[in-house]
Amino acid sequence: MAPTTQSLLPKRPPPLLKDELDIVIPTIRNLDFLEMWRPYFEPYHLIIIQDGDPSKTIRVLQGFDYEFYNRNDINRILGPKASCISYKDGACRSFGFLISKKKYIFTIDHDCFVAKDPTGTEINALEQHIENLLKPSTPFYFNTLYDPYRKGADFVRGYPFSLREGTPTAISHGLWLNIPHYDAPTQLAKPRERNTRQATTLYVDAVMTVPKGALFPMCGMNLAFDRELIGPAMYYGLMGEGQPIGRYDDMWPGWCIKVICDHLGWGVKTGLPYIWHSKASNPFSNLTKEYKGILWQEDMIPFFQSLKLPKDCNTSQKCYIELSKLVRARLGKIDPYFIRLADAMVTWIEAWDELNNTSGTASTAPAKVK
Amino acid sequence: MAPTTQSLLPKRPPPLLKDELDIVIPTIRNLDFLEMWRPYFEPYHLIIIQDGDPSKTIRVLQGFDYEFYNRNDINRILGPKASCISYKDGACRSFGFLISKKKYIFTIDHDCFVAKDPTGTEINALEQHIENLLKPSTPFYFNTLYDPYRKGADFVRGYPFSLREGTPTAISHGLWLNIPHYDAPTQLAKPRERNTRQATTLYVDAVMTVPKGALFPMCGMNLAFDRELIGPAMYYGLMGEGQPIGRYDDMWPGWCIKVICDHLGWGVKTGLPYIWHSKASNPFSNLTKEYKGILWQEDMIPFFQSLKLPKDCNTSQKCYIELSKLVRARLGKIDPYFIRLADAMVTWIEAWDELNNTSGTASTAPAKVK
Repeated sequence: MAPTTQSLLPKRPPPLLKDELDIVIPTIRNLDFLEMWRPYFEPYHLIIIQDGDPSKTIRVLQGFDYEFYNRNDINRILGPKASCISYKDGACRSFGFLISKKKYIFTIDHDCFVAKDPTGTEINALEQHIENLLKPSTPFYFNTLYDPYRKGADFVRGYPFSLREGTPTAISHGLWLNIPHYDAPTQLAKPRERNTRQATTLYVDAVMTVPKGALFPMCGMNLAFDRELIGPAMYYGLMGEGQPIGRYDDMWPGWCIKVICDHLGWGVKTGLPYIWHSKASNPFSNLTKEYKGILWQEDMIPFFQSLKLPKDCNTSQKCYIELSKLVRARLGKIDPYFIRLADAMVTWIEAWDELNNTSGTASTAPAKVK
Repeated sequence: MAPTTQSLLPKRPPPLLKDELDIVIPTIRNLDFLEMWRPYFEPYHLIIIQDGDPSKTIRVLQGFDYEFYNRNDINRILGPKASCISYKDGACRSFGFLISKKKYIFTIDHDCFVAKDPTGTEINALEQHIENLLKPSTPFYFNTLYDPYRKGADFVRGYPFSLREGTPTAISHGLWLNIPHYDAPTQLAKPRERNTRQATTLYVDAVMTVPKGALFPMCGMNLAFDRELIGPAMYYGLMGEGQPIGRYDDMWPGWCIKVICDHLGWGVKTGLPYIWHSKASNPFSNLTKEYKGILWQEDMIPFFQSLKLPKDCNTSQKCYIELSKLVRARLGKIDPYFIRLADAMVTWIEAWDELNNTSGTASTAPAKVK
């Protein structure tokens, strides 16, 4: 008998994983954007991290199950290790990844709303992320019909049968309609462009695995991941107040997780689901935050493209510690910032192990609010 | 001043390149399928290669500008070197690539018809291929919004500016609606599946560069390429009569061109345009042709994934000769077929140089028919 591929296809995943997923939201403002997400988010637990002055009050809409952390909470829980968590920058969301006890994380920005597909149907972004994470990835060989595990799709002719079981998916990177995810120079050069033609060109109905060996620019505004697999590498770096760089808080973990996933044989998916990105940030302010990143990425990307992790690095933690050494040795020559960042990467892993390897962690968490 | 990306974007290409492109069609039957393509193909020159018994007459529709070659023509023009051209297999189309004098080639199978996009508009596949080939590729870093040179698109934040000029595109790999491009085991396992839901899931409105280092299963039924760049590597191998393998005639050059493009810094695009694939071939017959390929691809793909070409291989020809040596040394151990294939690869390059490096090649070509 000829082999069949049907047995290799995973079963359709359940639509919700209520007890296995936390939603992490960094914010500087009241969370009124949650109203639109209510039917999708209300079943889940939210972890809200205040991105700024802890004396200001943040209003969360009623009916959501959430816990809330401001800078005082972070300092209290982490003590001296709080130095690795950015202040006055969306990078503070990493603390939510650290404090969660769930297997999966979905993180979203407060200027992201529910998008519609070309038929006008609201997109349940979270459901698509869960589907992406529960289905395998194919980083070792490119499937020209995109995600072969999607309903109606399969592996095309010439796809080796030995690779059709796929590999665990660690990251689901969703995209955006309306405002594209541009850097300040591109924003300045193309002020009128909006990603609004969702029914024609720019709504691309695909999910795909980013191939092994290829780096990609990870955007943190609509992102889900398997915290057990890759959480220890999902550190958004040192950004914001007191740092010479901003708006690279998601690029940095994007490069780190990709080399670690490539090393450990895990997959990174990109494409669906789309969210509606409502507000482009100010390009002049962005340029101020970004300009060092724009210069440094010309060195950071070749650094990540060329690095090799040792075989005995068989967990995210071990890979990340090794990565911190390479950052210190090779990027430290560019700017002292990278020495501080390498230190912070080690502190982050220490904090991760402290909060995640102990049996009684409840005492570190504030009371939950319903 | 901030840098802008506008100056880096290529101008919109001309829709047609009448004097720079040949359409190559291998066939065993009358070419009535051309009627549907008349508005798109009539401006171009066609090279038709008879895939079988030269005593049978092939009818080409009136009004097309074409030249026609059967096995007798191939033997007369190439002499002993005709041994490298497959007989009774679509792989014979390579002869058309060899005999053409144009910069670009588009090759299409005779069971491929004009597809419609989700709005019901006919897709001008050739125009999209030309656009793909004339715009640069981005193999060195993944752009999450797909082809950044497409109208309305751009490079996303975190894309290094040093890579935004892109690299020449050597290959444009188009996809298919209706009948997916499955191997025999998948055809047997999923007889009812058809890629018909073009307006929903499976019409994916994207073109993208296959990243450097990633191999892909290249399908030869809807394919365009820059013959000057990659033509010498576009050899469809030894298939059909007298050979132990079939239906790998396009996979083989797909692996070869990808490692050569990666080595020489050229791009391979996949995605749009779609054609309508009308007829799935017989899965039982396909299994007979494919089964050795299905086994061998488990060794062929790791071979291509791991090989390194020397730095002094700076043309497609030099790369291809080097590749033939590696095929002989490493795949020759699997089956004597690969020794014959390595010989044929060398013969192919000799034939290419003979027909393409001489000043007076007109004598080798039969009279053109209008």
